[in-house]
Amino acid sequence: MSMAGLDPSIANRLKRTPDGLVCAVAQQRGTGEVLMVAWMDDEALHRTLTTRRATYYSRSRQTYWVKGETSGNTQQVHEVRLDCDGDTLLLVVDQVGAACHTGTRTCFDSDVLLSEQD
Amino acid sequence: MSMAGLDPSIANRLKRTPDGLVCAVAQQRGTGEVLMVAWMDDEALHRTLTTRRATYYSRSRQTYWVKGETSGNTQQVHEVRLDCDGDTLLLVVDQVGAACHTGTRTCFDSDVLLSEQD
Repeated sequence: MSMAGLDPSIANRLKRTPDGLVCAVAQQRGTGEVLMVAWMDDEALHRTLTTRRATYYSRSRQTYWVKGETSGNTQQVHEVRLDCDGDTLLLVVDQVGAACHTGTRTCFDSDVLLSEQD
Repeated sequence: MSMAGLDPSIANRLKRTPDGLVCAVAQQRGTGEVLMVAWMDDEALHRTLTTRRATYYSRSRQTYWVKGETSGNTQQVHEVRLDCDGDTLLLVVDQVGAACHTGTRTCFDSDVLLSEQD
């Protein structure tokens, strides 16, 4: 990857949290499934854009985290979009296997708070 | 809506930011489009679950905000799911008109940082 860091023309459009992060939504290409939501700082976004492997920033572990690096459940990144107010990214990815660390396909598969009306 | 507030069995599962919020991703039912990302506190989630009209909390204005209340571009809520670590909601909605205040269908339509490889 480039050592130059995130393109300043992109960095200038980001609206970060006080701890320097933007929200990232990963969506499966084709099916449109929302797989997971995580966080990126400028360097994580830079790595994601240059390697096309989704790389997040772990707030709890305070470290970078290449999705699937240990599990093999990688995310190949096809598109990255920034939202209208610059604080959220949408990643269109090909997810290998389960996106969720619990083993389910997405992180939203297990806890339904409201379902279709009868 | 009920005045009793959010069901404690749900409230107990939420992992909130220091200012008491969880992230909410709104997705169009059927097409799977990711429309927008916003924030909810317990009361916004309670109102969303009981009215089936997406209701968010505006961090900048520090007030509740029923999506489409002024624009008419409402979100009828069909499903709400909580993610594996309790800090993000997925709302499956029927979006009337534009989800984005800029007038585009989604908040991710205008700024592509990375596109499909040639």
